[in-house]
Amino acid sequence: MNEFALIQQLTRSAPANSTVVLGPGDDCAVLDLGLPDRWVLFKTDAVVEGVHFLRATPPPAVGHKALGRCLSDMAAMGGAPSSAVITVALPPDLPESWALGLYEGIRRLAERFGLAIVGGETSSSPGGIFVSVAMLGTVAPGRCARRTGSQPGDSLWVTGELGGSIEGHHLDFEPRVGEALWLTEHFMPRAMIDLSDGLAGDLRHLVGAEGRGAELLAEAIPVSRAARRRARDTAGAPAPLAAALADGEDFELLFAQPPRRAVALIDAWKKRFPTTRLSCIGRITAEPGLRLRRRGKIEPLVLHGYEHFA
Amino acid sequence: MNEFALIQQLTRSAPANSTVVLGPGDDCAVLDLGLPDRWVLFKTDAVVEGVHFLRATPPPAVGHKALGRCLSDMAAMGGAPSSAVITVALPPDLPESWALGLYEGIRRLAERFGLAIVGGETSSSPGGIFVSVAMLGTVAPGRCARRTGSQPGDSLWVTGELGGSIEGHHLDFEPRVGEALWLTEHFMPRAMIDLSDGLAGDLRHLVGAEGRGAELLAEAIPVSRAARRRARDTAGAPAPLAAALADGEDFELLFAQPPRRAVALIDAWKKRFPTTRLSCIGRITAEPGLRLRRRGKIEPLVLHGYEHFA
Repeated sequence: MNEFALIQQLTRSAPANSTVVLGPGDDCAVLDLGLPDRWVLFKTDAVVEGVHFLRATPPPAVGHKALGRCLSDMAAMGGAPSSAVITVALPPDLPESWALGLYEGIRRLAERFGLAIVGGETSSSPGGIFVSVAMLGTVAPGRCARRTGSQPGDSLWVTGELGGSIEGHHLDFEPRVGEALWLTEHFMPRAMIDLSDGLAGDLRHLVGAEGRGAELLAEAIPVSRAARRRARDTAGAPAPLAAALADGEDFELLFAQPPRRAVALIDAWKKRFPTTRLSCIGRITAEPGLRLRRRGKIEPLVLHGYEHFA
Repeated sequence: MNEFALIQQLTRSAPANSTVVLGPGDDCAVLDLGLPDRWVLFKTDAVVEGVHFLRATPPPAVGHKALGRCLSDMAAMGGAPSSAVITVALPPDLPESWALGLYEGIRRLAERFGLAIVGGETSSSPGGIFVSVAMLGTVAPGRCARRTGSQPGDSLWVTGELGGSIEGHHLDFEPRVGEALWLTEHFMPRAMIDLSDGLAGDLRHLVGAEGRGAELLAEAIPVSRAARRRARDTAGAPAPLAAALADGEDFELLFAQPPRRAVALIDAWKKRFPTTRLSCIGRITAEPGLRLRRRGKIEPLVLHGYEHFA
């Protein structure tokens, strides 16, 4: 059973109460705690030694990644991050300097986003290192972007460049919090998700729940230099386009927009974020499934997203 | 370095922002998100295989314990639990039924407290099982109980019975949420904490930060039957009183009250919670340090609380 199916099964009968606007299944939970004009976003995520990082990974980079993953989920809903709590389980043989380095990476990233770190628990771990982050944010109800809501004909957009994240980007990515806040203010997406499981996998999450599909333009997909370099230099690495479609941990935003807004969006984006790419990579279709248009031919997309729970 | 010192060092320079009423260092963080008359409580905790439970522990009991620990921390601040998110890391060889059992234990306890489970993440784990819970609750500012605030002369109270938790109580304890809500409504404690590290250790947390001490009456400490049985039947087990003072994971409430309210508190408690003990076990002193009064003699208390990070 893969990660998605397992989570789905585990949370199917999750208890709810009157505060829950949106429970499990999107990038964050959405809660109405009674704030006038604001919903609260609530999210947890974790990084595990041997899965998301190695013992040799610099501890500040592990902290950056642990916090950045939750920040990216906040961004995917258009949320403004507010505070976080951290749980770490550390093997007894780990030097204290490792934990201090971890927190240094967390602190640096938190400060850039005005995020408060308001609590932490530490346990020993007979196995490897485990770092869990839980985060709160807020969003105005009208600016809360969900995975659902896209319409056939909507154009599909992605920030940044994709693929080859394992070469380093997965440890030093910049969560797209500011970009998402700008988008939800000026070009409210009809649906949005952050790319953690690979473009193809996360696109399925964006369109799948509503029985829609998508058509991607191969030439429009922004392949990263890391993916090209890796395809050239690393035996067994996927071709650059395959890497951009299937590699995980890009932590970019994927969103759907009514097509008539494309020119205005591109112009305004270039002015506001001149050093960050924004690419129109395809469109939502009424027909289910993912298809790739390449050199004038359309073929079904059979790649699978990276799955942590393989 | 022990758990407390490490957490203290890691969170010393934790970034804050304008929402933070109380950051790291108490049972929960306290946030002012702009709700009229309510603060938000935010807490995380985790259970780790080989530290807090064993592979053979029934998975519903692991779920109960993971969620119950956070509920107990909410209780310690007088909070009403609202929602929680769960992160689990599971070894690949673990059967799916284990994860389903875990969530069954979580779900059952959540439903009893009207708590919504609003999100979950699952990762694989090359080491052991790890379950992290983050929880939100709310509390009226005037009813938020902290670890600080006790005064010399205050009487010290504890719910339930202490010691020998390892015999089973650590897996099936009842978080004192209802009791704490009743206390903060009718007999607002001057300071409160939940007992996770043992009476002696947590009492030090309650009085230590303000440079005060406490005197305990040995005969008044409610020793559990499990602690007595264990002292009798298990080679090397501590004497019953030592167990009640030092064993961890009782998950009872320890709180300070002005002494003049003792009779009214006892009377009202017995009516409201007839099957749960409430014991006056000593008093807060201006003189630092913990002392034990026993058979007419006063001696310094030299036991140490159970420390996870040993």
